[in-house]
Amino acid sequence: MTPQTIDDLPTPALILDRAVLYRNLKRMSDRLREAGVALRPHLKTAKSVTIGRMAIEGHDGRITVSTLAEARYFAQGGFKDILYGVGIVPSKLAAVTELRRQGINLRIVTDNLAVARAIADAAKDGDTFSVFIEIDSGGGRAGLPYPELPGLLEIARVIHEAPNVELAGVMTHAGHSYHESTPDGIAAVAEQERQAIVGAAEKLRASGISCPIVSGGSTPTAMHSRDFTGITEMRPGVYVFNDLDQEFIGSCKPADLALSVLASVIGHYPHRNQLLIDAGALALSKDISAQEFQPKVGFGTIADAPLKDMAVVACSQEHGFVGSDDPIPYGNLPIGSRVRVWPNHACITAAAYDRYYVVDSDHDGGKAIVDTYDRINGW
Amino acid sequence: MTPQTIDDLPTPALILDRAVLYRNLKRMSDRLREAGVALRPHLKTAKSVTIGRMAIEGHDGRITVSTLAEARYFAQGGFKDILYGVGIVPSKLAAVTELRRQGINLRIVTDNLAVARAIADAAKDGDTFSVFIEIDSGGGRAGLPYPELPGLLEIARVIHEAPNVELAGVMTHAGHSYHESTPDGIAAVAEQERQAIVGAAEKLRASGISCPIVSGGSTPTAMHSRDFTGITEMRPGVYVFNDLDQEFIGSCKPADLALSVLASVIGHYPHRNQLLIDAGALALSKDISAQEFQPKVGFGTIADAPLKDMAVVACSQEHGFVGSDDPIPYGNLPIGSRVRVWPNHACITAAAYDRYYVVDSDHDGGKAIVDTYDRINGW
Repeated sequence: MTPQTIDDLPTPALILDRAVLYRNLKRMSDRLREAGVALRPHLKTAKSVTIGRMAIEGHDGRITVSTLAEARYFAQGGFKDILYGVGIVPSKLAAVTELRRQGINLRIVTDNLAVARAIADAAKDGDTFSVFIEIDSGGGRAGLPYPELPGLLEIARVIHEAPNVELAGVMTHAGHSYHESTPDGIAAVAEQERQAIVGAAEKLRASGISCPIVSGGSTPTAMHSRDFTGITEMRPGVYVFNDLDQEFIGSCKPADLALSVLASVIGHYPHRNQLLIDAGALALSKDISAQEFQPKVGFGTIADAPLKDMAVVACSQEHGFVGSDDPIPYGNLPIGSRVRVWPNHACITAAAYDRYYVVDSDHDGGKAIVDTYDRINGW
Repeated sequence: MTPQTIDDLPTPALILDRAVLYRNLKRMSDRLREAGVALRPHLKTAKSVTIGRMAIEGHDGRITVSTLAEARYFAQGGFKDILYGVGIVPSKLAAVTELRRQGINLRIVTDNLAVARAIADAAKDGDTFSVFIEIDSGGGRAGLPYPELPGLLEIARVIHEAPNVELAGVMTHAGHSYHESTPDGIAAVAEQERQAIVGAAEKLRASGISCPIVSGGSTPTAMHSRDFTGITEMRPGVYVFNDLDQEFIGSCKPADLALSVLASVIGHYPHRNQLLIDAGALALSKDISAQEFQPKVGFGTIADAPLKDMAVVACSQEHGFVGSDDPIPYGNLPIGSRVRVWPNHACITAAAYDRYYVVDSDHDGGKAIVDTYDRINGW
């Protein structure tokens, strides 16, 4: 039986509200178009060709991915300009070449001189590469830390001077924007992000090395940046769905949450004021990022709950423990009734599922399943 | 190119050491056989028919699963006596019936009177069910809390008296054994577990209701229990692989870790004494259970590391941040070199992968890929 409404779905299941998705996509698309900045959405969140196509509408089609499996999947889906945003290692160059020979401009990232040399080496037989140099704008993940930018010019020269290798530009991800929770705080991180990549690009240009693309990223900085001067593209990702973490840091409003996990109530435990649902650690993920600003969200909050603070307070593999400070009205949530859980971190939660069941809250209250979108997982 | 050794594998990848797996399986199998207790392994950890078949060798073939997808997969793999160990809801009874009509004794679990009535109702047309009543032996997850056992006799009577429905027995999972870290502490939980299910079975029998199966579970209690009197079967799960959490609570030794994640070093960051690997939140999971007793393990420790305390101290989606208190010897871990990460919680980490790459440390140092086993994920 093909499920007609979410009431027909086996639980747990991943539910995507298309009406909210559309609004989220349009908000970011409009904002960056008005800012004169190209949008290179990071499709590591959606991992869906259908959603990827919607995300690039009105833009030039460039995208970002986080795995080679995504690169192959989106290439097959017709995407031509793909940035693989995780530092490349020499053993992965053969897979990159395989896609590039098919006409896909799969671009790679490094911040390391030995890797730059390995890329130059791999290009000797005529294969081409397009390389970004990664800059650490303060997040302390990958990249050459700004303002020191140690080794920037040496790495750039190896890439610039290697036949068949193009220095595409510089890129950064201001992941520290996730630890701010005010527009001013995020805007300050966005300005750090801007200065780091624009500064790196200027340093290259001052040395006679061209740096066409200056690429920033992160949903919070894309939403709250007050100055894009010098930035040519942005790579936000989680904005397509949003999640509790984005809500609490102020990147979105509660009405902008597009993704939820549908679960069944499987047990009542009034002696400890809890109930169990069949969405646990695998269905929700054990990501607790949203607890940084709202400790009581646990592993996700209950949508349309009879109590304001109902949340998944603990998880085992297939059990979610739902609690509240107030007495749970068990009569409203009988065994077998369904709840939806807002995830802490949409990118991680979605990765447990191979498809989205799509509803549309603008048309029928979001009950009917209007579509399903597949997604790619793994590596 | 078919990978011949783990050096040929794309990273991240899930590596299973068959030599250690065999020893883990044999240890539990021998222990329970000697105790005169049936082994009903919980295959939610391995989710692999191949491993499931090894696990039941010398036993009668009964198994436990945590999802209906697993039930279907193991049924197709030839398993006939399957306990679906998560509280059933009425909407899932049709899927249960579908397998039972194929001759699979898929048994279900409840602790709820309304559900017991729904099962009795669903059996009216001639479909049969085999039902366990779940007991809470102190873990505070599902089950009727012992010693009160509220509603036990009413639920049992509904099941016992319904035509076509069999009361298979009582079951519990002593999840609180995971929060002990000494053999004595775990043995005390095991004794609580035993008393709860044996006590529930006696209460049923005293009321003239037969209770053939008395089912306990959890790897720690199966390993450290000092008295199985009255228990007829045990349902350990994670013992097949073990993990850092099991090591720290004392269920296994470091040499008993069978599962690891193979990752590539993708960046060097000497200014903060870190390196990055390409195994992050999705490849390792964000489970931090093992931090309860060893806070410095982060999201997993590095196997065969040049420094004793090297661990994945932070994760983003595809980046693992490796740190240490001592200066990292970058020369020993060049970009592109491979490390293996011991996971905190094998059940959750394995769920990101669709296969195990199998090595055998008894024969060639564990480098050659001697087999691959598939696994089922999702619901």
